[in-house]
Amino acid sequence: MKTLLPEPLTQQSFAPFGDVLETGRLDHPTYAINDGFTQRYHGLSTVQAEGEAVLLSIFETRSFGLPLRIKMLERHPLGSQSFIPIGTTALSGFYVVVARGQNEPDPRSLRAFEVAPGQGINFAAGVWHHPNIVRSGTQQFLVVDRADPASNLEEFFFPENWEAVELQV
Amino acid sequence: MKTLLPEPLTQQSFAPFGDVLETGRLDHPTYAINDGFTQRYHGLSTVQAEGEAVLLSIFETRSFGLPLRIKMLERHPLGSQSFIPIGTTALSGFYVVVARGQNEPDPRSLRAFEVAPGQGINFAAGVWHHPNIVRSGTQQFLVVDRADPASNLEEFFFPENWEAVELQV
Repeated sequence: MKTLLPEPLTQQSFAPFGDVLETGRLDHPTYAINDGFTQRYHGLSTVQAEGEAVLLSIFETRSFGLPLRIKMLERHPLGSQSFIPIGTTALSGFYVVVARGQNEPDPRSLRAFEVAPGQGINFAAGVWHHPNIVRSGTQQFLVVDRADPASNLEEFFFPENWEAVELQV
Repeated sequence: MKTLLPEPLTQQSFAPFGDVLETGRLDHPTYAINDGFTQRYHGLSTVQAEGEAVLLSIFETRSFGLPLRIKMLERHPLGSQSFIPIGTTALSGFYVVVARGQNEPDPRSLRAFEVAPGQGINFAAGVWHHPNIVRSGTQQFLVVDRADPASNLEEFFFPENWEAVELQV
């Protein structure tokens, strides 16, 4: 059994997989609008949707339990997908697990990130990722993604005889 | 001086101006994904961007103070704009003020809504609205809107000799 430990989430570390949504980033423009009453942290990420409509949805996700054996990953080849904690669970934080790989995820490339309170993420199109990993209970996320999600989903289940990988936090 | 009082925000009452982002709505599909660990409240709203890119940004807005005299409204003719409270202020609630009108807002049509904790909103393209009205301090919002906001902004300042309208909460 191989152990996967979460790394801190920064724009630099997460860049191969997407973008971090937070006000703390220093790599993008920010400017005042509304007569100075609003600071706009502009264009933290761009939605990818390949010409399809972009939807605003809410995901309510319950914990798989931790530690978590990583049995599968999924990806959305035609669009990005963002997760921003909202509501009473906005400050709970969560974990994401990602991997590189063209036709299937390369298990040697698995990485985990801890999404801290106040952060959100946007997975780039085609990035292999585990369904959202909530610490405990349930958590709500605002999700921005491409319409027609059913046609935009690929799942990969790691074969039973491969070395197991477990997320420990 | 005319007084404007906020109404409760429901999908039905807000429909002429956009959509309410919340899990409590009963007028849209919701279904389980991720092996039953996630409930997807699907397509609560659709982003309008007229062929331009869609951006994820964060607005950090401070209060104008309350009660608030409504001196101007703005609209984005080419795209929708969503506001979902995030971070430490996710449960603060806020107020929106909207109006109908083609070339300019009709002051007789002004309405205010109280966006309760756990709710967000998506203004439809072209809807006259006041910049976000925060109760006190500062509040952070995830904003989903069209790229190139400068070309997508119209502002209307109510003439001084018109009857003043004040939002009271």
